[in-house]
Amino acid sequence: MMTKRSYAILGTGAIGGLYGARLHAAGFPVRFLLHRDYQQVRDRGLRVDSIWGDLHLHDLEIYNDVADMPPADVTIVALKTTQNSALPKLLPPLVGDRGLVLVLQNGLGVEADIARMIGDRVLGGLCFTCSNKIAPGHIHHLDEGKIALGDFRLDGQPSGLTDRLEAIAGDLEQAGIPIERQADLILARWKKLMWNIPFNGLSAILDAKTDALVADPAIRTLAVELMQEIRAVAAADQRFIPADFINTMLTTTDAMRPYLTSMKLDLDHNRPLELDAIFGHPLRVAQAYGVAMPQTLTLYRQLKFLNDRRSRETPV
Amino acid sequence: MMTKRSYAILGTGAIGGLYGARLHAAGFPVRFLLHRDYQQVRDRGLRVDSIWGDLHLHDLEIYNDVADMPPADVTIVALKTTQNSALPKLLPPLVGDRGLVLVLQNGLGVEADIARMIGDRVLGGLCFTCSNKIAPGHIHHLDEGKIALGDFRLDGQPSGLTDRLEAIAGDLEQAGIPIERQADLILARWKKLMWNIPFNGLSAILDAKTDALVADPAIRTLAVELMQEIRAVAAADQRFIPADFINTMLTTTDAMRPYLTSMKLDLDHNRPLELDAIFGHPLRVAQAYGVAMPQTLTLYRQLKFLNDRRSRETPV
Repeated sequence: MMTKRSYAILGTGAIGGLYGARLHAAGFPVRFLLHRDYQQVRDRGLRVDSIWGDLHLHDLEIYNDVADMPPADVTIVALKTTQNSALPKLLPPLVGDRGLVLVLQNGLGVEADIARMIGDRVLGGLCFTCSNKIAPGHIHHLDEGKIALGDFRLDGQPSGLTDRLEAIAGDLEQAGIPIERQADLILARWKKLMWNIPFNGLSAILDAKTDALVADPAIRTLAVELMQEIRAVAAADQRFIPADFINTMLTTTDAMRPYLTSMKLDLDHNRPLELDAIFGHPLRVAQAYGVAMPQTLTLYRQLKFLNDRRSRETPV
Repeated sequence: MMTKRSYAILGTGAIGGLYGARLHAAGFPVRFLLHRDYQQVRDRGLRVDSIWGDLHLHDLEIYNDVADMPPADVTIVALKTTQNSALPKLLPPLVGDRGLVLVLQNGLGVEADIARMIGDRVLGGLCFTCSNKIAPGHIHHLDEGKIALGDFRLDGQPSGLTDRLEAIAGDLEQAGIPIERQADLILARWKKLMWNIPFNGLSAILDAKTDALVADPAIRTLAVELMQEIRAVAAADQRFIPADFINTMLTTTDAMRPYLTSMKLDLDHNRPLELDAIFGHPLRVAQAYGVAMPQTLTLYRQLKFLNDRRSRETPV
């Protein structure tokens, strides 16, 4: 029997905690890097209350310093993107000469940033997961859970279904995680932005849940035009999203239960907003292709204001 | 000695109450139409606490039904623009065959609407006035007070300084009100929109005072681009605003004390927002000329959402 691939988890929160715990429970060697929650998890274990079954894990391999961690076959980046400035220090010792990185984050551009650090050894996943960290060392996984998983090529072209993608997908499926293999990760990321930009952005700006936004005629029209802007930039980036996908996003949102987006929750809890990955990078791509995104830009600037005000008001 | 012109005041609030009281105090026959505050003013008079001197007027000619009011030489429209649907009923009996109308409201398009009702007998003024109604029959005039006064032509062209403009300007000046005569009322209205659209809009959307908005780099840039959109539509409308006017607006706002805009106050007090005059009409002009205003449109839709949510939450 082959040795199972080892995993390192950066960011033991709603995403990293959930998927890391499932991999551990499935018998994979998983090492967690913890910071604020280290003491809590060491003393009381990691709790994951999940629609897939509850876990309370006391025997985890946890670390509070990356320097103590051995290289892993796969390092899962599940930090908030606002913490990505730590990656140039964290990743090289973990990935060593052969390790892969799997980016489970929102937005666009992170795989490319990491590939510039460690070379052509990066994959990415989009989590369609309703999960929250409700207390230190305590994750609550409420709904969904699928990962759309794709490989990343340095030249930005679609990678197709590679062997390393298949290997990691197989591990995650062994751990009971539904996987949707993506021949084109970047296309999947553009499609997810078509929801995240309007609904994360407007829910934070207008202090509203998704149901109120999508039901309002003016906001519904604005959401359509924001999606059209994103679709146009994606097309300039050679990612062609069918026009009808816009309607799919709206009717999907109509059918969702009222939902506070992650950006709205971050604002309410006085955490930094994931502005660069969700707005800043796509806007820079648009600028590079000479495509205007004036309505997206308006939201971005409003969110920057809200984020800056938040940080000004945060006691140090 | 000539008989003094008579004035009728529609809307005895922050603007109509202040200027009507000054005209009355200067000896002009002034008739006030009151609705909710009628009883209060009849019993206790109209109080105007003002940097120009306090007035407490008990001898006013007040009405609670427009049918009882005689025609006036000049009818001042000082309602909120959100009440303008009442004008087709209110104005014709007041202006009779010869009366003039002076529109002291925000935004664009109201003079043209009224001219369609009563013909070429409309003038307009932009109030640069910091004044609030703080209680029924009680106005507080804190700062400024100048009116930029211009005549209105049916064909939308600049009217120049007409005799009737001069006559009304003279009356207002007799009442101690600073007047700035405008050869082109519509140009003055576009220029005021260059401040009102960014700062009224964003202060309501982002729950912020003017000083915080103008000091934030992202919002300052957004304000500049919103002003560029307005300037482009004004130019299509043959109103040419110097590019440097944008800087003037910013530095003026830098120098202002922190200020909650009228739209923000309306939202906070659960009153309808003046969206059509300040946003809707300029956007329709832009559309007619084929000029895009995507960032202005984004704000408009966000404000419509906030206004609709307000009205949904208002107990009837």
